[in-house]
Amino acid sequence: MQRSLDSLRRLLAEEIPLSDRLGVSVAAAGEGQVVLAAPLEFNRNHEGTAFGGSLNAVATLAGWSAVWWSLEEAAVSGVVVIQDSAVRFRRPVTGDFRATASLDPDRVARLIEAVTRKGKGRITVDVTVEDADGPAVEFAGRYVVTR
Amino acid sequence: MQRSLDSLRRLLAEEIPLSDRLGVSVAAAGEGQVVLAAPLEFNRNHEGTAFGGSLNAVATLAGWSAVWWSLEEAAVSGVVVIQDSAVRFRRPVTGDFRATASLDPDRVARLIEAVTRKGKGRITVDVTVEDADGPAVEFAGRYVVTR
Repeated sequence: MQRSLDSLRRLLAEEIPLSDRLGVSVAAAGEGQVVLAAPLEFNRNHEGTAFGGSLNAVATLAGWSAVWWSLEEAAVSGVVVIQDSAVRFRRPVTGDFRATASLDPDRVARLIEAVTRKGKGRITVDVTVEDADGPAVEFAGRYVVTR
Repeated sequence: MQRSLDSLRRLLAEEIPLSDRLGVSVAAAGEGQVVLAAPLEFNRNHEGTAFGGSLNAVATLAGWSAVWWSLEEAAVSGVVVIQDSAVRFRRPVTGDFRATASLDPDRVARLIEAVTRKGKGRITVDVTVEDADGPAVEFAGRYVVTR
């Protein structure tokens, strides 16, 4: 899947300018997960920890990337857009961080079937943001895919 | 409140670097509201509309600014941090946009009392994001204030 990994990197860099301004890079993708990394430096707040809006944006991007990835793996083309999301900040993020989006295989199967059959489907993606001290932020986003 | 408006502008510009990268400016503040403006150009996605993560981040900042503003008006000092939030994207944002954070006066009164008495309080802030065609995104964020 090196080709898909390169495509995802290019897509984020070229098509979503904010990902560059957040300092986001694709750390890993595959096996039902996409991991994005971002530096504290670009994303700090008045307290010197990570700004909640940045953490939320990186989590949103990680979820979006995971849905894009699952379509790519299934060789189904579609446009991915977020519909709603919720986030909980359990503790401050004090260093560089990673957002891991995990896809449930059953949800992916249902999504692919809906998109293939009806031209539209939805999926909820869970994302955890961690720094060197472990998990700090829980995010859940619902994405819509239209063929 | 011109002095507070200048303080808020300086605070966002200097202390939260992402606000500059989002192109955020303070359009108005006072009367229980803070309005932040942002250009589509910095925040577009693969579809040429506003990226959900950007909309979420600007809404988070607007809510944060409104809580900061209410403390400023009450002459109470405190650190404002977001605890959790939820967002719903009703339709794509197709141009420059504004995030209006509205503070309920009763909630503000309870917050100020809790912070003054116990050194800590919480408040939920509702934020609406609009473009030229009207409301597009609904956001609710809960913020914690510690003295």
